[in-house]
Amino acid sequence: MSKIPVGILGATGMVGQRFIQSLSDHPWFEPKALTASEESAGKMYGEAAKWHLYPSMPDDVKDIEVRTTDVESVENVDIVFSALPSSIAEDVEPKMAEAGKIVASNASSYRMEDDVPLMIPEINPEHLNLLRHQRNERGWDGGIITNPNCTTIILLLALKPLVDEVGIERVFVSTMQALSGAGYGGVKSMEIQDNLIPYISKEEWKTENEPLKILGKYEDGEVTKSQIAISASCSRIAVLDGHTESVFLELEEDTSPTEVKRMMSEFKAVPQELELPTAPDQPIIVREEPDRPQPRDARHAGDVPGMSVVVGRVREDPVFENGIRFFVSGNNAIRGAAGASVLNAELMKAKDML
Amino acid sequence: MSKIPVGILGATGMVGQRFIQSLSDHPWFEPKALTASEESAGKMYGEAAKWHLYPSMPDDVKDIEVRTTDVESVENVDIVFSALPSSIAEDVEPKMAEAGKIVASNASSYRMEDDVPLMIPEINPEHLNLLRHQRNERGWDGGIITNPNCTTIILLLALKPLVDEVGIERVFVSTMQALSGAGYGGVKSMEIQDNLIPYISKEEWKTENEPLKILGKYEDGEVTKSQIAISASCSRIAVLDGHTESVFLELEEDTSPTEVKRMMSEFKAVPQELELPTAPDQPIIVREEPDRPQPRDARHAGDVPGMSVVVGRVREDPVFENGIRFFVSGNNAIRGAAGASVLNAELMKAKDML
Amino acid sequence: MSKIPVGILGATGMVGQRFIQSLSDHPWFEPKALTASEESAGKMYGEAAKWHLYPSMPDDVKDIEVRTTDVESVENVDIVFSALPSSIAEDVEPKMAEAGKIVASNASSYRMEDDVPLMIPEINPEHLNLLRHQRNERGWDGGIITNPNCTTIILLLALKPLVDEVGIERVFVSTMQALSGAGYGGVKSMEIQDNLIPYISKEEWKTENEPLKILGKYEDGEVTKSQIAISASCSRIAVLDGHTESVFLELEEDTSPTEVKRMMSEFKAVPQELELPTAPDQPIIVREEPDRPQPRDARHAGDVPGMSVVVGRVREDPVFENGIRFFVSGNNAIRGAAGASVLNAELMKAKDML
Amino acid sequence: MSKIPVGILGATGMVGQRFIQSLSDHPWFEPKALTASEESAGKMYGEAAKWHLYPSMPDDVKDIEVRTTDVESVENVDIVFSALPSSIAEDVEPKMAEAGKIVASNASSYRMEDDVPLMIPEINPEHLNLLRHQRNERGWDGGIITNPNCTTIILLLALKPLVDEVGIERVFVSTMQALSGAGYGGVKSMEIQDNLIPYISKEEWKTENEPLKILGKYEDGEVTKSQIAISASCSRIAVLDGHTESVFLELEEDTSPTEVKRMMSEFKAVPQELELPTAPDQPIIVREEPDRPQPRDARHAGDVPGMSVVVGRVREDPVFENGIRFFVSGNNAIRGAAGASVLNAELMKAKDML
Repeated sequence: MSKIPVGILGATGMVGQRFIQSLSDHPWFEPKALTASEESAGKMYGEAAKWHLYPSMPDDVKDIEVRTTDVESVENVDIVFSALPSSIAEDVEPKMAEAGKIVASNASSYRMEDDVPLMIPEINPEHLNLLRHQRNERGWDGGIITNPNCTTIILLLALKPLVDEVGIERVFVSTMQALSGAGYGGVKSMEIQDNLIPYISKEEWKTENEPLKILGKYEDGEVTKSQIAISASCSRIAVLDGHTESVFLELEEDTSPTEVKRMMSEFKAVPQELELPTAPDQPIIVREEPDRPQPRDARHAGDVPGMSVVVGRVREDPVFENGIRFFVSGNNAIRGAAGASVLNAELMKAKDML
Repeated sequence: MSKIPVGILGATGMVGQRFIQSLSDHPWFEPKALTASEESAGKMYGEAAKWHLYPSMPDDVKDIEVRTTDVESVENVDIVFSALPSSIAEDVEPKMAEAGKIVASNASSYRMEDDVPLMIPEINPEHLNLLRHQRNERGWDGGIITNPNCTTIILLLALKPLVDEVGIERVFVSTMQALSGAGYGGVKSMEIQDNLIPYISKEEWKTENEPLKILGKYEDGEVTKSQIAISASCSRIAVLDGHTESVFLELEEDTSPTEVKRMMSEFKAVPQELELPTAPDQPIIVREEPDRPQPRDARHAGDVPGMSVVVGRVREDPVFENGIRFFVSGNNAIRGAAGASVLNAELMKAKDML
Repeated sequence: MSKIPVGILGATGMVGQRFIQSLSDHPWFEPKALTASEESAGKMYGEAAKWHLYPSMPDDVKDIEVRTTDVESVENVDIVFSALPSSIAEDVEPKMAEAGKIVASNASSYRMEDDVPLMIPEINPEHLNLLRHQRNERGWDGGIITNPNCTTIILLLALKPLVDEVGIERVFVSTMQALSGAGYGGVKSMEIQDNLIPYISKEEWKTENEPLKILGKYEDGEVTKSQIAISASCSRIAVLDGHTESVFLELEEDTSPTEVKRMMSEFKAVPQELELPTAPDQPIIVREEPDRPQPRDARHAGDVPGMSVVVGRVREDPVFENGIRFFVSGNNAIRGAAGASVLNAELMKAKDML
Repeated sequence: MSKIPVGILGATGMVGQRFIQSLSDHPWFEPKALTASEESAGKMYGEAAKWHLYPSMPDDVKDIEVRTTDVESVENVDIVFSALPSSIAEDVEPKMAEAGKIVASNASSYRMEDDVPLMIPEINPEHLNLLRHQRNERGWDGGIITNPNCTTIILLLALKPLVDEVGIERVFVSTMQALSGAGYGGVKSMEIQDNLIPYISKEEWKTENEPLKILGKYEDGEVTKSQIAISASCSRIAVLDGHTESVFLELEEDTSPTEVKRMMSEFKAVPQELELPTAPDQPIIVREEPDRPQPRDARHAGDVPGMSVVVGRVREDPVFENGIRFFVSGNNAIRGAAGASVLNAELMKAKDML
């Protein structure tokens, strides 16, 4: 099978580089168009991007010419991955969709639109059906599918088996988030060294609201939102990669920590059944040590590094009736961003929707 | 007035050094006896203690001879402050009390004993009355009074005005605690660099249980425990000093964030009325900026640096009926340890109990 | 004596805030004019400046209206301290001098001009005489005096007693510099977390060249540069404040480490003789412990915190004939910047040159 | 070819784990015996070792029973790699050699013995001949070969092409070393957070003296030491892995930075010619960016990750005649420790000495 050529919008930034990494040696996709801002346009990617990741920049993208972020620049591909800032995505992504491109976007601009799938393939693969309505309503040949905010993805992956098997009433979550989540230049060293910042713009709103749509029920072209109640308080700490979340849950039924751990460990879903290339064998890894998960190793977790989340310290909660609490940590840049979009595209491909 | 000579048990460790600092230039107390382990005994304090704090070691303690931690070593003082590890405190503190010493202890060994005051002077000054019963029951001339764990103190100070004015049903708290809380050698750099540890031994139990006693009602020599329900999840992060806590509250009545901030800002109690020397003018400082409190400055907060806690991001909670959430940060080593014991002793002195 | 009103140019940035701090409660000077960029102009300082330091912003500057950085804005003062970036200082400082102001500048723009004193009061107080020539030549009523780059000051203070007593031939210095030296936003957290950056723009040139002028001999309105040979390699590390320098020296005569330490410890100079308000009693503090100096405490060193440098590990060098090597650490923001300018102004005042 | 079974002495510590990693999937060697201290003996390795590295512990060592560190425990192997602390190595290694084992040691105990090869395969492969004399003199069937201290290896690899092509007279080196170099528990977080420590026990002596032997000339069973003069000042900084060194050189002949970079980039030696399995294709990688090398990426450098060193900022030195200065950074735990011993063993195998 020859590979499907794809584009990456905003390819030089942190998330863009993670896209390059996720798509390098991908069995189905191959980056053939890379876009960035005006200053980078016209340069080879190897020159335009200041590479921040390990391993080094893959050789096969070094000599791709970076173009400006518009429809003409991606005419040679049918699928584009978007690592654009939301202010730019808002304008560009619909134009791409109108021009017939499938846009697999990590930007927040269209996540909450009624006809735009907000996807975590392990959780709501059936929401892909929204795409048909999106095309009809908007008259597009292409379409936009989105993945949630990093904090939402890491949280919801851990919650999904409990939602299915026992039901969740209420969630309190307090996060300790990595620097890379703010982009390469987002947090100044003088701000965070020997310190923490108990605030991340818009993060709490996203963490509380995106899950209602993701966990919502799809029927007849509409998603009815879930009634789960979530309260989030978000902090930034001095960790390079890996968001960690302290979670308190009220379940619908009494469930022991042992049962919860079993449900999480055994959880598999559509991406695992379809054997999607970057679907981890085990989406949730449960650790039994008293002091896990820790972001320095959770960021690499799983057989597809960075695509599994790690749960630990699952224990009863003394406040809630049917309460459970635990910590979850995952890679905000991979499972929480670029890897999420790639998995979305893989699902579409496996469903013959590309 | 000539100063009251006091002793410090375990004077060379991190908390011991904070005691030295708090008692240096104290208007009422003067360190005259310092104890430590066998290796330090016989040396001058200036030589025995590897000083870790800023400012430098006060001159007046440098030439005090460090002695072993037993009753004979403190015969020249009637009051001793205990910075002992709990395993040693368990054995030594009763002997001191039996020998007629007032032991103002930061150790956890006797905190939860029925007849031992567990004190935060702004919260439960009347619990001091337990001391009379303690003496009667145990036949002691002296006695033991204790202060809570650092995390408990910082949390409860912030909660106290709400407990009084509206009542609190339930509390979820997720902490981000400083390295110094584990003692100078407690956390290895390889463990915490670019990482966090979502576990602190016994910390959650203390944070959930100590408040029940502290907020309990004293009557006829007994404390009836409070019914407040608390769930705590504790993490260690790479911050030198200053614990920060993410708090979610269910109040008994609907109360706006503005009202909550007013209650906290205006809160004053017995230590302020008595003008105790190290009582901060304002025990709770409320910050209005979107990104506070931060431990790097909260650790110095207040007119008595380190004795106030800082609250920020007070906002409604979407999950609880009558919900409120906020962050609080305070100095674990001062308000949360040595300064707490000193304030306890000041209260006793002001009440003519020394 | 009523205090002398002074201005601070660029008062809202990191160095500007250090000027505020150094001049707060100063016995001779009082900030009466504060300038900043257009966005801040018109606001009260308390509102315009995001305060980054401990202790908190002094009350007496909070209600000073910040103005744009031009001559009209400082008409009520005769002396201005400049914390301007060099690109702006280049234009503004001569205008100030022409308008009759004494400009005590931390900017690099005019440091190497032949007729501009580049001063460390302990080292070359006689260079102040250049000011007369500067005024004559340029037809100014005021004038510009400068202090060196932070790295230069910390190095040269440590070297000065050796220059005087035995002579220095050659210097190799490798630095480990603090984040604050790059300004509040200068270093991104993603760059420096778990890393170091072996490069600081222009720093090596300054460290190698400024000393030649400072150690130069003043005669008849001219400074003849010193012949000392210096090679510098500069790195940034994850430390908030305090530059540390690893120094290798070739002396003109065989001198033991003991002798070197004596020379450094006993070093006093004109600022100490004149008892200038912010002159430390001991400019160089020599530590005997095997593992000092360390920036976390060296940043506060001395009786005027941050104005002394700390030397440690003085030992023979096995490569140079008459070789000596040591480490020196000092506060880049105080002794290395704002405090340096203030000390310069104090010297002028003591010499009746204001 | 079936693999050669090998042992690892001190297999549970930081360096021991790096040995496990280097030998996992090694084409020639296979770990078959693992030793550690009494507490670990009898447990499976998977249980005995608290694994600190990424990726996770290789499966094939998990079920090897850890034994005490003595000759009986390694009877099933002829080659042992030693990650022992020097105090234990001093006693154990000769017993192993006497019992016929080849000991490839990272310990410092025997490095400077006249008849013990102190090896960097790219630099002094002919020193392996010392082994014959060692056996003769000591009557051993086996033997001890050692690799240098981490700081020495990283420095000397960078210097070797210059030693060969132009000659080096004098070296000043100031280091910024990683936490892992002190072992997992070696540096306390309270010591190094927001700080540096300008001292590492015995490190400077090793860095100054080991090169004299390594660069020495082997003839007739003896190594005549090199006359190169080295002065080292060593600091610990808050970096997990990767030592960085600031180097100042006096060369024997005038050589341009361009020439130096060419010599370094083109440098290949015996391990490359023999295509040893873990020999990097390019032992020295020269970076042209203004701000490299940085340890966060240099720690992974090369086609065999961690086995190349990275040089940057090669420039003229203004102090030395024929002076050159640069920075070099390399992985202290791989090229500087476990990987060094493995490369030594590979060289012996390729020379049919195993």
